[in-house]
Amino acid sequence: MCKSDRKLIPPTFDDVLTAYARVCPYIHRTPVFSSRFVSSVAGAKLIFKCENLQITGAFKARGALNAVLGLENSAAKKGVATHSSGNHALALAYAASLRKAPCHVVMPRNALLSKKHAALDYGGKIVECESSASARERMLVKVLAEYGAEFIHPFNDARVIAGQGTCGLEFCSQAADLDAVVAPIGGGGLVSGVCIAFSELAPATKIYAAEPKNADDAFRSIRAGRIISDDSPQTIADGLRVPITELTWKFVHSKLTDVLTVSEQSIVDAMKIVWQRMKIVIEPSSAVALAAVLANSKLFARKRVGIILTGGNVDLERLPWQRHFPASPRDLQ
Amino acid sequence: MCKSDRKLIPPTFDDVLTAYARVCPYIHRTPVFSSRFVSSVAGAKLIFKCENLQITGAFKARGALNAVLGLENSAAKKGVATHSSGNHALALAYAASLRKAPCHVVMPRNALLSKKHAALDYGGKIVECESSASARERMLVKVLAEYGAEFIHPFNDARVIAGQGTCGLEFCSQAADLDAVVAPIGGGGLVSGVCIAFSELAPATKIYAAEPKNADDAFRSIRAGRIISDDSPQTIADGLRVPITELTWKFVHSKLTDVLTVSEQSIVDAMKIVWQRMKIVIEPSSAVALAAVLANSKLFARKRVGIILTGGNVDLERLPWQRHFPASPRDLQ
Repeated sequence: MCKSDRKLIPPTFDDVLTAYARVCPYIHRTPVFSSRFVSSVAGAKLIFKCENLQITGAFKARGALNAVLGLENSAAKKGVATHSSGNHALALAYAASLRKAPCHVVMPRNALLSKKHAALDYGGKIVECESSASARERMLVKVLAEYGAEFIHPFNDARVIAGQGTCGLEFCSQAADLDAVVAPIGGGGLVSGVCIAFSELAPATKIYAAEPKNADDAFRSIRAGRIISDDSPQTIADGLRVPITELTWKFVHSKLTDVLTVSEQSIVDAMKIVWQRMKIVIEPSSAVALAAVLANSKLFARKRVGIILTGGNVDLERLPWQRHFPASPRDLQ
Repeated sequence: MCKSDRKLIPPTFDDVLTAYARVCPYIHRTPVFSSRFVSSVAGAKLIFKCENLQITGAFKARGALNAVLGLENSAAKKGVATHSSGNHALALAYAASLRKAPCHVVMPRNALLSKKHAALDYGGKIVECESSASARERMLVKVLAEYGAEFIHPFNDARVIAGQGTCGLEFCSQAADLDAVVAPIGGGGLVSGVCIAFSELAPATKIYAAEPKNADDAFRSIRAGRIISDDSPQTIADGLRVPITELTWKFVHSKLTDVLTVSEQSIVDAMKIVWQRMKIVIEPSSAVALAAVLANSKLFARKRVGIILTGGNVDLERLPWQRHFPASPRDLQ
């Protein structure tokens, strides 16, 4: 079987364990926090897995490291490439830097400046493109052809999903007996990894994905029974503008309890509560899971709910509660 | 010896241990974090004690709880009172709420809205005054006379200092062999407590206080050999606008290695680095210690340096790197 096939076979719990042994020395075992105030607002006992405190500022380091550290030397030498709105890009740049491998990242022009700068800081080479999924893919094909680099997809890749599963693995060991776990869904890499870990270690825990109403392709896909993808959805949750794909769909349609959708305003409100009361910096995509719990108070009433805070990479000069945000339609392109 | 005398006797290490047993069930053992990036900028190994993640958002909960939980029932019934720009006020309100005791707080009109709201949330009763130290004291005398409440000074009180010492106690156990520890100094309650704990547990560790140049009364006091106090210094570090007092002076002049002063811009820069790279919310007063380390790179080069991040209570709508800040001279009154 050729390599490109292998990376499209759904990973197993064993793959997650192998990934954990591989990435463990290079990631943080991120802490879990709780807040009496936020729990009281939710009417539930909330436990937050703080991947915003992960190296490179997001859970994406787990998947990128698993993929890059597992490369043969010859492949690493040619380098790696990807398309990403930001967090996977800088995670991949970080992972590649550990192997002194070149890293090419196709990023949409409207990606956050802070994410672009961080990718550059880690030694990544940025190629800009328009913000639609199709534009990203077209540009990536060009980059792969030019450099012969290994493509590390941000989520439609078994190595990446197994890496993200290590977040679920840790969370299970840090917070026992969760009635539910809620994670944001964009392409579905994290959610797929969480499904693998929780199905094995905490099969009674219900698994919810949370999604912006403005980018609700997973929600509509589940209801339609097939993948529905939007090319360029508009949401403040910049990490969740991508559609699910074949590999993540396998987990999304078979393992998820449900997908919950939330408004843009509720994302901003949830983000602000976390900053104000928990004193940690999370990005809008991170706030989507809490927003979903707060918007579905009956569903989670008095339950013990795990929430994955996925990342903390924001432009501090452009916060969503400032009156200048969004400054122009370009921000929501 | 009457009670008012006892609270002006310098506390000992035993007092800190007693305080820890008393407050432990009601506070967080806050985590220590480090950041490769921030350490590399400093050229030193930095270890941060995250009191911004403390209950009520600041280390002040420790001292207020020690004082309030130690009150006789009869005294608690009459309630407690204080003057504070914010963090001690809401810590005292929280502590009083645990004993269902009334809590009166004299706060300057220009205190942060978020701190006023939090004090009210915890059941505190706010009495506003002008922002000078003298105005606060005049208003407090009125309040004490009216309610017969017990005065819990934000720092010139042995019970409060012993409580703040528990932060040093934890830090010593979490980060061994520090070459230096750096904490912001306003009235000196935290620094005094840290001196008690470190002198006992880590006597080789140098203890530095960090202070805004714009409110450098501790710096000038050390050099003059006597307390010099300013009535109304102007600095963005709103928690450090108060002068040291007799009780804290005993520790400041005998135990500190030195006081380091920093510019307003360097405070904002340090605050932003922590938000951006460590993904935690700290207030300007908290950033003063890191600013001092970054401004004194030779002094700390390659050293193992503990930094106390004192609090995280900020108005998210009014961040210092926004172009509208400060909105008017009133902000820096």
